[in-house]
Amino acid sequence: MSGYRYATRAEILGASIYDHEPDAIVLNSGLAYPPLLPDVIREATEAARSHVEETLQYGPLMGIDDLRDEVVRFVAEDEVRCSRENILITYGAKNALDLALRVFVEPGDRVITTRPTYMTALQIIRSHQAPVLDIGQDNEGFLTDELEEKLKRLRANGEPVPKLLFDVPDFHNPTGITTSLPRRRKMLELAREFGFVILEDDPYRRVRFEGEPVAPLKALDDDAESVVISLGTVSKILAPGLRVGWAIGAPEVVKRMSRQKADGGSNPFTQRMVTELMRGNKLSKHIADIAAQMRLHRDAMTESLREFLPDAGVRPPQGGYFLWATLPSGIDGDTLAATARKHGVEVSSGRLSYPNEYPRNRLRLAFSFVGPDHIREGVRALGGVYDDLKKQEKNNGV
Amino acid sequence: MSGYRYATRAEILGASIYDHEPDAIVLNSGLAYPPLLPDVIREATEAARSHVEETLQYGPLMGIDDLRDEVVRFVAEDEVRCSRENILITYGAKNALDLALRVFVEPGDRVITTRPTYMTALQIIRSHQAPVLDIGQDNEGFLTDELEEKLKRLRANGEPVPKLLFDVPDFHNPTGITTSLPRRRKMLELAREFGFVILEDDPYRRVRFEGEPVAPLKALDDDAESVVISLGTVSKILAPGLRVGWAIGAPEVVKRMSRQKADGGSNPFTQRMVTELMRGNKLSKHIADIAAQMRLHRDAMTESLREFLPDAGVRPPQGGYFLWATLPSGIDGDTLAATARKHGVEVSSGRLSYPNEYPRNRLRLAFSFVGPDHIREGVRALGGVYDDLKKQEKNNGV
Repeated sequence: MSGYRYATRAEILGASIYDHEPDAIVLNSGLAYPPLLPDVIREATEAARSHVEETLQYGPLMGIDDLRDEVVRFVAEDEVRCSRENILITYGAKNALDLALRVFVEPGDRVITTRPTYMTALQIIRSHQAPVLDIGQDNEGFLTDELEEKLKRLRANGEPVPKLLFDVPDFHNPTGITTSLPRRRKMLELAREFGFVILEDDPYRRVRFEGEPVAPLKALDDDAESVVISLGTVSKILAPGLRVGWAIGAPEVVKRMSRQKADGGSNPFTQRMVTELMRGNKLSKHIADIAAQMRLHRDAMTESLREFLPDAGVRPPQGGYFLWATLPSGIDGDTLAATARKHGVEVSSGRLSYPNEYPRNRLRLAFSFVGPDHIREGVRALGGVYDDLKKQEKNNGV
Repeated sequence: MSGYRYATRAEILGASIYDHEPDAIVLNSGLAYPPLLPDVIREATEAARSHVEETLQYGPLMGIDDLRDEVVRFVAEDEVRCSRENILITYGAKNALDLALRVFVEPGDRVITTRPTYMTALQIIRSHQAPVLDIGQDNEGFLTDELEEKLKRLRANGEPVPKLLFDVPDFHNPTGITTSLPRRRKMLELAREFGFVILEDDPYRRVRFEGEPVAPLKALDDDAESVVISLGTVSKILAPGLRVGWAIGAPEVVKRMSRQKADGGSNPFTQRMVTELMRGNKLSKHIADIAAQMRLHRDAMTESLREFLPDAGVRPPQGGYFLWATLPSGIDGDTLAATARKHGVEVSSGRLSYPNEYPRNRLRLAFSFVGPDHIREGVRALGGVYDDLKKQEKNNGV
């Protein structure tokens, strides 16, 4: 046999974004801050105790009922009204996105996202061979006018209108922007008019440093004619390694998504652990601790960028895990990220967050994983790499 | 919005095979026998202890190294020689099948399977919109002559040759047949000649009641020009709820499969638990206990079928979890299964295991989940339902 005959999608995907160099300062990944990972001995023991009845058998496709009920309670704090049958438990929000794509998207169907958008979501969308219709953002978030115009043009040309929109309306990944209430209402209006479903990916909502929350799209959705599937996860509020997330949608939709799980019911063992972690009032305290810590990280990163990379344009986000930087136009994000990696600092070139065309001079920085001192050290090293590149740039220019 | 616009694959999938009626005697699912589910308190505590370093962060896409090493050791007992870089950890063998399909198969590409074959594998293959080229079985297993003839015809007609073959060569699901060594060698020869990859799904291999093992296809594979991806799981030897399985293949192939994981690295928490469960020599003892118990279940089922459903043709399998029954030609498996469900016994119509055309008079019975007494009770009830159907059949005929 002379070589493997791969499918197209196996050729598309690039390098993994999960591999890190040992001893690197990791500023390219939304990993949890290790000192705030919860002690789970009690919950693990609890899960082990129900091994026969629940945690070591195949679990139900929709997820275990107790956890679905906890999710109902959790999102009620954000005015999302739903009941157990609206909740599908998944391996994190990424898995939920994949299941939604399986349910709605054929190869060649276009998906709507912002430009830039969450880079792993783009990888998943690409693995479905779905081209992206990209829409800009401003300070108020998702540019609904641009979307409306593009959809009208598609309709006028007799072209198919996308069936799915993916967005991160709260503390957007990577830009940190929160979409305003009027824009959210307009997104819903467009979804109803043009018949698409909105995937509202909402992992960072509770990790707020300041400012007032805006109602989730799901809370503004019409129960009878639902157009929103809300995606949630415990990755940013408890621990990514538990691999537990959820989708909230019409019972018909989440049921169809559950049937697309190739691997049987998701892991019941960690579902039980998460159920125990969500019960009682310890979770809100824990989230408050995370938000307080992430605020320190954001401040450390913003301040050190101002000090060591003053040429970069930065808008400090009011919450979340990421910071988006605009470099002077001569500087290439790919080169800066690749060179920084050699110098022990890992950052993401902004290019990875763009579905189609991209500006070369953007960077995505994650401030979640390493503490303020390491953030400062990492940004200082990044600044040094930047200064060298700028000098080369100048010399090349002469 | 007037109704959802689903993708084709969301319409294809039928009812879930994971939903069971309360109090039903479940003879349609390869669930674990509850009394043999292992106590995992120690392993869960161990996993909880390494929460910061390993189990609560995103895990590596390929799986945690310690577990990959345990899998290397485990399959070495079957003469499969491989090293860590050949091992990809997944959420069970089903997830591995899905990842392999993502890597090799485009919608419309044909996949080779036996007729009948593992019903959930068929669901997964269908969700990839891949038609099936089906091949028969006899007492020696996979009919390589039929495959060769069909492949030659495709080639002669200038049609594309399938890129993937899926099979369960040991204690086949559902027929229980083990493919002979000469047939295995011929399968490999055809794979090399026609350039396809063999997915060897091997969950039941160690659950042997009698007879001598045949070398796995993976052990007969050529290391330099590998054509076999072996799929394994702890679902049938430890516990399905742990959701841990693996794929063994060329490093290039398993790496590409890892990139298709939509959901980040698989759950590191249960990976650590399984690592601890596989270490030491307790696992072989545990598997021996399972095999001894499953042998009792098989015997109870075979004997009670002979007593209560003597018209059924049954070949008792030498291992595994399933028994395949041929009913007299006037009896419809769908009707029998649906009626039995109403009488508190769940069995699978053989139709579900066929990729394309199907005989109407087959049944798949799982003997893993309920003990000998319940098996007997379930088969007695099934026999009663059968007798009623036969009477109706006769009356209709008169």
